[in-house]
Amino acid sequence: MEELKPRPANLSPLTPLGFLERAATVYGDCPSIAYDDTTYTWSQTHRRCLQVASSISSLGIKRGHVVSVLSPNVPAMYELHFAVPMAGAILNTINVRLDARMVSILLLHSESKLVFVDCLSRSLVNEALAFFPPHVQPPLLILITDNEVPPTPSSSAVHFYDTYEGVVEKGDPEFKWVRPDSEWEPMVLNYTSGTTSSPKGVVHCHRGLFIAALNALLDWSVSNQPVFLWTLPMFHSNGWSFPWGMAAVGGTNVCLRRFDAPIIYRLIERHGVSRMCAAPVVLNILSNSPTNQPLRNPVHILTAGAPPAASILLRAESLGFVVSHGYGMTETSCVVLSCAWKPQWNRFPASERARLKARQGVRTIGMTEVDVVDTESGASVKRDGSTLGEIVLRGACLMLGYFKDPEGTAKCLRETGWFYTGDVGVMHPDGYLEIKDRSKDVIISGGENLSSVEVESMLYTHPAVNEVAVVARPDEFWGETPCAFVSLREEGSTPNPTEKEIMEFCRAKLPHYMVPKTVVFKDDLPKTSTGKIQKFVLKEIARAMGSSRTSRM
Amino acid sequence: MEELKPRPANLSPLTPLGFLERAATVYGDCPSIAYDDTTYTWSQTHRRCLQVASSISSLGIKRGHVVSVLSPNVPAMYELHFAVPMAGAILNTINVRLDARMVSILLLHSESKLVFVDCLSRSLVNEALAFFPPHVQPPLLILITDNEVPPTPSSSAVHFYDTYEGVVEKGDPEFKWVRPDSEWEPMVLNYTSGTTSSPKGVVHCHRGLFIAALNALLDWSVSNQPVFLWTLPMFHSNGWSFPWGMAAVGGTNVCLRRFDAPIIYRLIERHGVSRMCAAPVVLNILSNSPTNQPLRNPVHILTAGAPPAASILLRAESLGFVVSHGYGMTETSCVVLSCAWKPQWNRFPASERARLKARQGVRTIGMTEVDVVDTESGASVKRDGSTLGEIVLRGACLMLGYFKDPEGTAKCLRETGWFYTGDVGVMHPDGYLEIKDRSKDVIISGGENLSSVEVESMLYTHPAVNEVAVVARPDEFWGETPCAFVSLREEGSTPNPTEKEIMEFCRAKLPHYMVPKTVVFKDDLPKTSTGKIQKFVLKEIARAMGSSRTSRM
Repeated sequence: MEELKPRPANLSPLTPLGFLERAATVYGDCPSIAYDDTTYTWSQTHRRCLQVASSISSLGIKRGHVVSVLSPNVPAMYELHFAVPMAGAILNTINVRLDARMVSILLLHSESKLVFVDCLSRSLVNEALAFFPPHVQPPLLILITDNEVPPTPSSSAVHFYDTYEGVVEKGDPEFKWVRPDSEWEPMVLNYTSGTTSSPKGVVHCHRGLFIAALNALLDWSVSNQPVFLWTLPMFHSNGWSFPWGMAAVGGTNVCLRRFDAPIIYRLIERHGVSRMCAAPVVLNILSNSPTNQPLRNPVHILTAGAPPAASILLRAESLGFVVSHGYGMTETSCVVLSCAWKPQWNRFPASERARLKARQGVRTIGMTEVDVVDTESGASVKRDGSTLGEIVLRGACLMLGYFKDPEGTAKCLRETGWFYTGDVGVMHPDGYLEIKDRSKDVIISGGENLSSVEVESMLYTHPAVNEVAVVARPDEFWGETPCAFVSLREEGSTPNPTEKEIMEFCRAKLPHYMVPKTVVFKDDLPKTSTGKIQKFVLKEIARAMGSSRTSRM
Repeated sequence: MEELKPRPANLSPLTPLGFLERAATVYGDCPSIAYDDTTYTWSQTHRRCLQVASSISSLGIKRGHVVSVLSPNVPAMYELHFAVPMAGAILNTINVRLDARMVSILLLHSESKLVFVDCLSRSLVNEALAFFPPHVQPPLLILITDNEVPPTPSSSAVHFYDTYEGVVEKGDPEFKWVRPDSEWEPMVLNYTSGTTSSPKGVVHCHRGLFIAALNALLDWSVSNQPVFLWTLPMFHSNGWSFPWGMAAVGGTNVCLRRFDAPIIYRLIERHGVSRMCAAPVVLNILSNSPTNQPLRNPVHILTAGAPPAASILLRAESLGFVVSHGYGMTETSCVVLSCAWKPQWNRFPASERARLKARQGVRTIGMTEVDVVDTESGASVKRDGSTLGEIVLRGACLMLGYFKDPEGTAKCLRETGWFYTGDVGVMHPDGYLEIKDRSKDVIISGGENLSSVEVESMLYTHPAVNEVAVVARPDEFWGETPCAFVSLREEGSTPNPTEKEIMEFCRAKLPHYMVPKTVVFKDDLPKTSTGKIQKFVLKEIARAMGSSRTSRM
């Protein structure tokens, strides 16, 4: 059979961009986007995307150029997920909550040629461009206006070449969009949020995003024409690939600029929302809102980033939310592990169901393999639910690599055929895995690996603790010992605990080697713009303290 | 970005075989197969497939070898869809209704090393092997026994090396299955049914079947754990890729050896069937059965091969079947066009709904493009619903090519990047296409393309007509004219029509150029083993009649 080689017709590159064309035929008259009082149909969205692709091509954007977007989840943001790559260019969405210096770093690193800027990010871009070295040509800017946002007098010196609607209007709806020459051609560039060090530019190709979009739909059993509420920022890893997925199933994209519980409940009611993705904190907001009331129809929520807490899960489910838990990272473009639910688990008590659902689970259909391995040897760890190892993955949803960082790429996308996630977990006997920590946050004390997250989880049960982060502190005898940075709640009725009391609290509930040998109270823990605690800053502090010189226990 | 090349972790070959491993983890305790009183779980099926793969590897089967199966839809047939390629080999399922000579041709052409033979196909294989030339080593045979089939004294001289259950028992459940080195590696070989000439060996690779399986699930909105009734033979284009699809979603495969309406209704009731695939004739059987009664729960039926007739559609839907209509061929491995239904069409009267549903529709999500083109120039035809052209496709579900037939492969998988289906259709203004004929059956009369199928459809409305086939007859003046071969119903109350009456019947309802200029009555029309009329035989007869010498009209 060796004579049978791929030929142009079956080699036709996989790309999620074709979903839009198909949606315009099948769902032409059906709503594609709903945003305040604006509604588009799929044929309008198809036409507008072609117009934008045509316009930016006329501006000189071509294959391989990077086009950035600084925008919340408004219709333009959705359209640009198609329009930019339909011009052959690479879409780079940037978190609007970053500071100006970071935005300038990303724009310079990506060599962005064109930036679409939401009206509320004008001054952010203005400040970011001020950081540009004088010899660097700044990118062309396009302003995304919004009737819903009252015009503010702009103090900005920045010049916008055009408005987004101007770009739409000038474009040719008959534009022949640029199909990728190869399915491995880059399509998006996403910078990781940088809880550790400098941000990394994750590049995904057309093939990866095609598989990711189908994978995301199948794993979550999304059928045709869902109503999808965009509570997950599209700048966050391209909304886990759902912008393309929604075109595949002709869903309605309910857009929104910002949200709180009343807004979400109102939109669910108004549009008949059936699906949404959200960080656990959003689940928290929805469950604890004083205005919440049971939903008329079930709403499926996919949550990832951290396992949902038992109490929140219970409350959310009692309101009518159907919660699924998955795991993904910028490097995987979509959820690649999910806690596939078994009907027989429904018979268990709530606490047991929550324990099971807190696990990240099994690989999704689009991925080839997942394992938990010893990082050095690559050997699988015991399937005992307690031996720590690094989560490794292989499959088509993985990134191509990091932009301009061959060393970083080679370090995680290893020649052995596995992607090393840097997350540490255990494999349960039933084949479901559970993440325990980031590998760089694991503390090795007396040769034992201990999960900083487990110590933190226990400390969060202390009534006086507001936030906590546990990191390694060098130790002469043990190598490392746990060091806890704790911020306390606003003063309540009881006096604040002492360092010793915190340690004793831990000693009662944890094995000795896991008990922090150092406790440091801090008013505020250092955080990234997305609210993640920057452990690398705390590690520096712990290292600067010097060795903890504990004696044997 | 040129430095970013695929790496082993993301290059990991796409294959549907991994779905089974995952099903064993997620759906381990859930039913995988139900057949009479036998039920397997997904962990049992996983284990049994590994055992079979291990056993046949021990027998010397390895990468690139062809392993054939002659079997109806029993559990072994399902398992072999995984077990054979898990040994690295290529699965070749053979229609059990073929005659012995054809089976011998296929076994010889495929160079099959091993054949799994259902107990009821023993004498078929015996006869087939008798056709083998003396110098050719016959393949090893394994017998699929069945407790449900009473043992018959076999007159067969054929020697079986082992039974299927023997093969299962001898295998190692810890076998490390053979992953493809490349996703383009061949995985199945299916012979087309040969309505035209000699059968062609269609080869599909792992990548194509991975995409096909996901494509089939998504297009039909199949969610997790469906109960799937196997009314479609798995030897028919691998059951449109649903054997792999069912493992992806952890469905229950309800197997059955043969069926009629009472059996199907009983199985629907017993197992709570939610999905089935079927040729329109099955829909016909179900709708017309005297024992039928409304279903308790809706059953989704996917039909392809020919559009469902309005009256049957209406009856089936009134019983509770939800009918979807699609199009595929052995060369596409799954349904690649489907009549994606629009909610607003539900408001139309039944006849209009049937007319819309009779269209083959739009490309499915996994395919890149479809078009209707002028076969010579490759230019798209007008989207007017009447201009005939050839259906062309591109996308990942297309075959690798025909085995040992580079010429046939190059003829349809053209260098222009399109697969030429040989089917002729029209594109409607709304972007939905409709198939009108096989291209080789189109009759060109006075420069006008006319669809033989349209003339046949009209002739089927004549009360005396039982079966009809219209082919081209050479004509001095017009080039070709339509020639109708007609078999009449058993004698009824009215006298049989004459040739002239048949032509007059047509003249009243068709444009002049479409009216058959020759009518031939025949008791039986020549057919393939699957019951399709062999037009190529009739064309020979029409050609042998010589020119029809019609005068101008």
